[in-house]
Amino acid sequence: MALSTGDQSQAVRNGLRAKVLTLHSMNPRVRQVEYAVRGPIVQRALELEQELCQGVKKPFTEVIRANIGDAQAMGQRPITFLRQVLALCVNPDLLTSPSFPDDAKKRAERILQACGGHSLGAYSGQPSGIQLIREERGGRYIERPNNVFLSTGASTPSVVGLLVGWARATRHGVAPSPSPSTTLTRGTLGRRWRSLQVDYYLARERLLGLDVSEASRCAVQGAWALATFVAVCHQPGNPTGQVQTRECIEAVIRFAFEERLFLLADEVYQDNVYAAGSQFHSFKKVLMEMGPPYAGQQELASFHSTSKGYMGECGFRGGYVEVVNMDAAVQQQMLKLMSVRLCPPVPGQALLDLVVSPPAPTDPSFAQFQAERQAVLAELAAKAKLTEQVFNKAPGISCNPVQGAMYSFPRVQLPPRAVERAQELGLAPDMFFCLRLLEETGICVVPGSGFGQREGTYHFRMTILPPLEKLRLLLEKLSRFHAKFTLEYS
Amino acid sequence: MALSTGDQSQAVRNGLRAKVLTLHSMNPRVRQVEYAVRGPIVQRALELEQELCQGVKKPFTEVIRANIGDAQAMGQRPITFLRQVLALCVNPDLLTSPSFPDDAKKRAERILQACGGHSLGAYSGQPSGIQLIREERGGRYIERPNNVFLSTGASTPSVVGLLVGWARATRHGVAPSPSPSTTLTRGTLGRRWRSLQVDYYLARERLLGLDVSEASRCAVQGAWALATFVAVCHQPGNPTGQVQTRECIEAVIRFAFEERLFLLADEVYQDNVYAAGSQFHSFKKVLMEMGPPYAGQQELASFHSTSKGYMGECGFRGGYVEVVNMDAAVQQQMLKLMSVRLCPPVPGQALLDLVVSPPAPTDPSFAQFQAERQAVLAELAAKAKLTEQVFNKAPGISCNPVQGAMYSFPRVQLPPRAVERAQELGLAPDMFFCLRLLEETGICVVPGSGFGQREGTYHFRMTILPPLEKLRLLLEKLSRFHAKFTLEYS
Repeated sequence: MALSTGDQSQAVRNGLRAKVLTLHSMNPRVRQVEYAVRGPIVQRALELEQELCQGVKKPFTEVIRANIGDAQAMGQRPITFLRQVLALCVNPDLLTSPSFPDDAKKRAERILQACGGHSLGAYSGQPSGIQLIREERGGRYIERPNNVFLSTGASTPSVVGLLVGWARATRHGVAPSPSPSTTLTRGTLGRRWRSLQVDYYLARERLLGLDVSEASRCAVQGAWALATFVAVCHQPGNPTGQVQTRECIEAVIRFAFEERLFLLADEVYQDNVYAAGSQFHSFKKVLMEMGPPYAGQQELASFHSTSKGYMGECGFRGGYVEVVNMDAAVQQQMLKLMSVRLCPPVPGQALLDLVVSPPAPTDPSFAQFQAERQAVLAELAAKAKLTEQVFNKAPGISCNPVQGAMYSFPRVQLPPRAVERAQELGLAPDMFFCLRLLEETGICVVPGSGFGQREGTYHFRMTILPPLEKLRLLLEKLSRFHAKFTLEYS
Repeated sequence: MALSTGDQSQAVRNGLRAKVLTLHSMNPRVRQVEYAVRGPIVQRALELEQELCQGVKKPFTEVIRANIGDAQAMGQRPITFLRQVLALCVNPDLLTSPSFPDDAKKRAERILQACGGHSLGAYSGQPSGIQLIREERGGRYIERPNNVFLSTGASTPSVVGLLVGWARATRHGVAPSPSPSTTLTRGTLGRRWRSLQVDYYLARERLLGLDVSEASRCAVQGAWALATFVAVCHQPGNPTGQVQTRECIEAVIRFAFEERLFLLADEVYQDNVYAAGSQFHSFKKVLMEMGPPYAGQQELASFHSTSKGYMGECGFRGGYVEVVNMDAAVQQQMLKLMSVRLCPPVPGQALLDLVVSPPAPTDPSFAQFQAERQAVLAELAAKAKLTEQVFNKAPGISCNPVQGAMYSFPRVQLPPRAVERAQELGLAPDMFFCLRLLEETGICVVPGSGFGQREGTYHFRMTILPPLEKLRLLLEKLSRFHAKFTLEYS
């Protein structure tokens, strides 16, 4: 490999050769990838945690990771039934233990029967996951388990991304990337995406008949990302927490059909709907009910996972993607790509089985399961309400209702001198705000600039996941910090 | 999107529009990906299994998946200690149960303490995995846990692949792919790889001082794959089962250093060494012991997983990659890419912890753990020996000693008329042989052409994993089939 003069002289100074793999010889597209939710602010949060561990004095005693939807990290307890069945699957010696309810044992036996060698330790016989589980999922709306591909959390969507998002995109120099998240798509599509975003932005506002107020702008912006021939929809919305109406989803489907867009529906927050009058409608169900020409033709892939919802089992990395109206040959290619990864984690597959097919009312575990599930969702609803209330009381902060998902996306007013100071530092103004917030309070949130926002406005995304009383303190602390920050730069 | 005339007329005939996403509009590089271990022969095996289920009469009663190294699917029992600790982690209510040994409970508590919210259900706080586990691994040879990145089985290596394998490769039109396996690399690098393979092939034979016999050709071919500036080494070898000597590894390191190649060492079979006199040497340890200029400069990434070895826990998708002498800025990019996936499956991370740090001799579980571990490895050694013996007794089949890993890679003589018949069918001759074998015996193996083999020679890869007596019957059945096949086409 030819070395640049700079590399060579550096190497000579060190008495070493230059590395083979450097930022210059590396795949140049990798550098373009951005992922706000785990970006530089999270790196700094990690460092602060380590400093706290080492006894360094800070104006706070712990770092609060309100940047990521990780319910159990915030203290949410796992649902008993799910963990009982999983423990039985992991260690079948427990099947004779009197400490487990019968339905948990039956479910574990049923899952193990469907596993290679009756063990979670075998690859699932099919790269798209255990047949039984795909059938259970498939059976809810369709008779096509082959359209269901189990996945590693949100990483299998990357397979669809590889087929569709990158398909045209690669012609424009888009990086291969392991996730189809909006954020990443934006990162990898770079400027091209941004210009497209603007074009479609207005089109969509007209299309959806939305009031072009700040609220709906944020909602639209949060809920959508458009690449060259793919539309990505988050429903309920991330980061804005908006829950789309059925009419809105129908309009989106008509729009995708007319514009010839492959629809990717991220529906991982489908359990997380809090607002009175809001309801989750799956893109697939709405599509099916729209009838011809949409139902039989519009191409769609919808995603779900075990990470969000009432279960919050992020660490198990369970999930699936279901495809509708996909070209059969393309679907074969998708299966081939999945086979290269051998299979998604089998414990996550087992967990997904329980999520798509929870205890029935006649099962011994039903009452406890239902009570635990409702308790989690009721607490989330209370936290959603509290977040909106506290933020909207704070001068200079405005927050839309958190109708669903697990984030608020408040807008913050930042004084012009703070914006100037950020620019001097080469930071987005809301990144500057969030970094200062982290350093002074230990609260870690994601700057709105990481998700895209209307020029000249500033937001941050904060989860609603900390325990209720702790969340109240955090919201108040954050509001006070904003007031102090505003004063400092006024 | 413009439709081809053919697409349009087809669509008109069906009363439907052409799909948005087709083989033509899809990312064209996806089609180039090949993965022999789960290729068309495995697809056919799946169909046969389904036919058997439906009661279709076949000349066999079950399909034997000897194509893939999946020990537990072949009946190997999980190691008790590993599953005990995992069950305790999954369901911490069991920590008060008298049925679990104290050291298992202590380990589970230690792992849970290191998890977000003390639960396997939280993302690991760092995208490279739980700090504790990386420290335990890192501590074995180095004091740099930051060089250890936990992974989803063999899928995180794709992150390295993204950086290195694809780096130069993309300039030559190489597909992004989720695995760095030799097979895939070959698939995606296509003809370019093949020509490089030939160039380096001879260079390596000279370099390694290997006897250019059929045996060493196979060994070299199986153990190596070379892309533009990356060398991939499987040690012990897959598919050939060869265990490299220390001298050989040193020669490889010198070669990589002189040729300026980034070394990728696939060491997932490091427990699986059977031949008397053979010993596993890790690339990293050898590199460190070689001293300057190699130790401080040669760039290396080595991979391990929980899937092979004595534990055979494929379904948990645990693993790690450890980098040595990697450029710090590139390592930051690698961490960024991993963060997009959030984290590897946490149950797999927990399992990896137990694998890198098994019970110590003073622990209550040590005796049973050690006995179970030895029993598995002793049986594998017996199967390796048996495979070599039975195959070498069969006329027209020759098999090198299976020194390590879990596969034999016997060479089969195929009669010229069979080769012609295969060519008529558009199949590689060994693919034709393997498909016939599957149809007539239910034994599923991988054609050598999927891995690359010397022109005019034919091989297949078969695991040594079925239970000993079943394996004997399979080997004999396969040998008889070969004799019959040879007769048929003579």
